[in-house]
Amino acid sequence: MEPIEPVVPHFQEELEELKARLLVMGGEVEEQVRSAGVALLKRDHDLCQKVVTGDGSINRLHVEIDKRCFRLLALHQPMATDLRVIVSAVKINSDLERIGDFAVNVAEAALGYLAHPSVKPLIDIPRMDELAQGMLRDSLDAYIKHDTLLAKDVIKRDDEVDELKDKVFRELLNLMLKDTGITEPSLDLILISRHLERIGDHATNIAEEVIFIESAQDVRHHAQEGDAD
Amino acid sequence: MEPIEPVVPHFQEELEELKARLLVMGGEVEEQVRSAGVALLKRDHDLCQKVVTGDGSINRLHVEIDKRCFRLLALHQPMATDLRVIVSAVKINSDLERIGDFAVNVAEAALGYLAHPSVKPLIDIPRMDELAQGMLRDSLDAYIKHDTLLAKDVIKRDDEVDELKDKVFRELLNLMLKDTGITEPSLDLILISRHLERIGDHATNIAEEVIFIESAQDVRHHAQEGDAD
Repeated sequence: MEPIEPVVPHFQEELEELKARLLVMGGEVEEQVRSAGVALLKRDHDLCQKVVTGDGSINRLHVEIDKRCFRLLALHQPMATDLRVIVSAVKINSDLERIGDFAVNVAEAALGYLAHPSVKPLIDIPRMDELAQGMLRDSLDAYIKHDTLLAKDVIKRDDEVDELKDKVFRELLNLMLKDTGITEPSLDLILISRHLERIGDHATNIAEEVIFIESAQDVRHHAQEGDAD
Repeated sequence: MEPIEPVVPHFQEELEELKARLLVMGGEVEEQVRSAGVALLKRDHDLCQKVVTGDGSINRLHVEIDKRCFRLLALHQPMATDLRVIVSAVKINSDLERIGDFAVNVAEAALGYLAHPSVKPLIDIPRMDELAQGMLRDSLDAYIKHDTLLAKDVIKRDDEVDELKDKVFRELLNLMLKDTGITEPSLDLILISRHLERIGDHATNIAEEVIFIESAQDVRHHAQEGDAD
């Protein structure tokens, strides 16, 4: 007699598939963030538009991955590490979707910025963009490679992004005070720097989840009082 | 012989306790958002400071509620509605924590704003604040009362918040162009309106989760292509 095929596919296979889909989503989100940065720096109007309308696939993945997590929890009784992987996938999925939204926000503000002549050579914003992209890439890398050291390194870099955000704000404010002609594009740059900072925040969340998966340690809110994280 | 106490407490009790703690968190987050709004409108420097340093308890609840969700998933095998309640609690917990962060951000920007004379009588920002608070309150109410109609109503109101955000931006930009003396406080108001908009976004997320719990329907990204939600 032929062995009967199980109705429920093997748990480990489905879990691997979940992780693979999360990485596909990560790749698409990375691409949106990268494109938004390039579009701003190269003053590429078409690329901005492409990013603004380009998150349909990310949104579909967001819904699909949530369904996969739910199915895994409903049909199996995952324990310990497997359970942490699935619960973390729910959260990383949300963070990635949110980062995708911020990439769209960067591209929207970039469209506003490109409607005016260049304010100044951009230095700190490309640096923020590079940092945020690196944090996102490395948080996903840490997830794939179970690399808690890399995850901790991502978390550390968040302070640098925050400092650059404050620096960008002060500089642009000073420029605006001297010349109202650049008020509007300067505002767009300030908003872009805020969106990049939020991308760094969500990459930090992903890195925190990696540490939770690997060590069952919750490292969030380490500085409890008086810290908004 | 005395009956032996079960080692694992009753599932339904723990689930009710989870919901109760989530509502405690919701209440504290509501209070932070309300205080941030009052502090701005009443020009209350001390209340701003209180909000800025006042999210320690929310951060502790964030970690505690996540642990409760994880414990419920690990020790029991929740199915159907119960499973949806727990997975949604993970997400609502994240949304509430993030709203708490935005309340801190509002209070921080309000501190900047209060360092200058008043720019103009505030009309649209108090309206945004009221809307965001109402969305948060009603999303939590919908959660308690299993009220999907109220949840749908919350989702609808998000557009109004977005429109007000754009209106605030245009108005303040025009004021800044006329008088650089108000550039700095105007920038603070623009940032405040952005934070309030994000609070509305996360209240919308909570409302979407309520619909998911009650109907197992995923209503996110209903307008897939070209919509950043």
